[in-house]
Amino acid sequence: MAPLLKDELDIVIPTIRNLDFLEMWRPFFQPYHLIIVQDGDPTKKINVPEGFDYELYNRNDINRILGPRASCISFKDSACRCFGYMVSKKKYVFTIDDDCFVAKDPSGKDIDALAKHIQNLLCPSTPLFFNTLYDPYAEGADFVRGYPFSLREGLPTAVSHGLWLNIPDYDAPTQLVKPRERNGRYVDAVMTIPKGTLFPMCGMNLAFDRELIGPAMYFGLMGDGQPIGRYDDMWAGWCVKVICDHLGLGVKTGLPYIWHSKASNPFVNLKKEYKGIFWQEDIIPFFQAATLTKDCDTVQKCYIALSHQVREKLGKIDPYFAKLADAMVTWIEAWDTLNPKEGAEANGKPTKGK
Amino acid sequence: MAPLLKDELDIVIPTIRNLDFLEMWRPFFQPYHLIIVQDGDPTKKINVPEGFDYELYNRNDINRILGPRASCISFKDSACRCFGYMVSKKKYVFTIDDDCFVAKDPSGKDIDALAKHIQNLLCPSTPLFFNTLYDPYAEGADFVRGYPFSLREGLPTAVSHGLWLNIPDYDAPTQLVKPRERNGRYVDAVMTIPKGTLFPMCGMNLAFDRELIGPAMYFGLMGDGQPIGRYDDMWAGWCVKVICDHLGLGVKTGLPYIWHSKASNPFVNLKKEYKGIFWQEDIIPFFQAATLTKDCDTVQKCYIALSHQVREKLGKIDPYFAKLADAMVTWIEAWDTLNPKEGAEANGKPTKGK
Repeated sequence: MAPLLKDELDIVIPTIRNLDFLEMWRPFFQPYHLIIVQDGDPTKKINVPEGFDYELYNRNDINRILGPRASCISFKDSACRCFGYMVSKKKYVFTIDDDCFVAKDPSGKDIDALAKHIQNLLCPSTPLFFNTLYDPYAEGADFVRGYPFSLREGLPTAVSHGLWLNIPDYDAPTQLVKPRERNGRYVDAVMTIPKGTLFPMCGMNLAFDRELIGPAMYFGLMGDGQPIGRYDDMWAGWCVKVICDHLGLGVKTGLPYIWHSKASNPFVNLKKEYKGIFWQEDIIPFFQAATLTKDCDTVQKCYIALSHQVREKLGKIDPYFAKLADAMVTWIEAWDTLNPKEGAEANGKPTKGK
Repeated sequence: MAPLLKDELDIVIPTIRNLDFLEMWRPFFQPYHLIIVQDGDPTKKINVPEGFDYELYNRNDINRILGPRASCISFKDSACRCFGYMVSKKKYVFTIDDDCFVAKDPSGKDIDALAKHIQNLLCPSTPLFFNTLYDPYAEGADFVRGYPFSLREGLPTAVSHGLWLNIPDYDAPTQLVKPRERNGRYVDAVMTIPKGTLFPMCGMNLAFDRELIGPAMYFGLMGDGQPIGRYDDMWAGWCVKVICDHLGLGVKTGLPYIWHSKASNPFVNLKKEYKGIFWQEDIIPFFQAATLTKDCDTVQKCYIALSHQVREKLGKIDPYFAKLADAMVTWIEAWDTLNPKEGAEANGKPTKGK
């Protein structure tokens, strides 16, 4: 049996090192095409294990392909991964960090995270009413008594957010306070995040439908030359959720787990995060209150409308948000250039793998 | 060590038969006081296993204690259980059906459902933002990166909704279509249902804080002389959730599981449910849109305000809802009579157990 969506899904990996972690994923990833976004020094050679089909982009490639619009792609931060979303030509994207390994389920079996994400994406979501027995489409499950029948068809799923065993995705203060905490709890559930509810989206183990939500998966301005880091995926998650809610799309979280091997340095993280820790207290109410008008009927229109609101409302917090609002617009321009409506090929010429 | 909340919690059980099911719960329930609400023929003698401390109310007791207001308590339907909530003098209530037995966790250990409910109730809820690693207060867990620090204190928990292994809580159509489906999935999680999201609350395995939300736990008019049944807990759940959202209280669902032993008859259920199946298509949008004004600062005021909206908006669907709106008011009057603000004792004289 051919692997599911073999020709319709790209795996996007941001990295600064050799991709030895792929060895462990070989049985699951090898049939798929990889898009590797090399961060940092573009002269460094990244080794990719034999037998993987990949294209690799370094900073020089990004600058060449996007020209002046390359300014919207972060440097020296894993936020650079969103360039991979933009150059992909597939319907689906799975993105994973290079310190994430294959986890085991409670029976000791290796978890094929990608297969589970695909299942999540191909199966509807239920954001309009809560099902207490979790995913009603899972085998052996259904909608419980009291679930409106008119809502049982569900809505298309745009995002599948997977979780992490071992090192949990904590912020720097929590890392500092609980240096030894590990996540060993395997929760056997996938759930839809209800409409109107925001969540902290982590980019470590994430899949999405590019056609449905791709242009909103912008990971913002982080890292080199920017006042914050480690809010790239959060930013994307807030924007994505508001737009999914508006367009009637679903966001799932839960299974699959990956094994997150090592905690990043909490002192370095604190330096990257501390402004975000303040700012999120205003950003989250902003997104909770954000509304989009009826004429925002595409992801692009929604995203541009959000960028205006960011400039107007968050610009008061710090000039950074005006810059970010500009970058949001640039991102959409770049996206539309590389993904023309007619389906014509974009003219990026990446380093091709075998 | 004394059992937690031994003198602050009542167990409410609606029944029409001998309570042999208590034998299995003896190690967990015996320290607590039981309130048994006998449904159906009041001349029938219900046997309670030796050694339990209980009070028992039959229909005659309900009529005597409430007088004309007894009309708000359903007859020949497990909705009668809410009379037990009203006569309790404790801060917490746990209610369970008499076909629910002790479940085992994946390690094979008996689950002390009551202890877990108590833990859920004593621990805050997080309805204002979603935590992807589930209950952030659980051992070994915390808030993930991107969770606003200002929300980490959480809100008081008003309701703990437990789940069911074996026979899932399905409506009649699903029972008919999937007669052999059993729930064997043990999901090791407790989660807060986000603010603004409704859920189907099942009364089979449910605990709540009477002081925080008791007067909203009215199970409506069902059964004898009414056009529907099996929507008692659903009705309570919709009202409770709207009021909890308004008052800043939390509702949790997930652990603990009980073992639900036998499915009720789907043909009988269909007869009870079929109007509800239509009506819920209007009722749920009604509750999703319901708002309460600032002056609704007690559960009672919220509930009376909701009753007005029920009369006005749902009364158009069927005259039943005008009757239900009246009963909601009667319920609050009865509640306040039995639970006077001064803390004076009500004068119910139930059949006393040992």
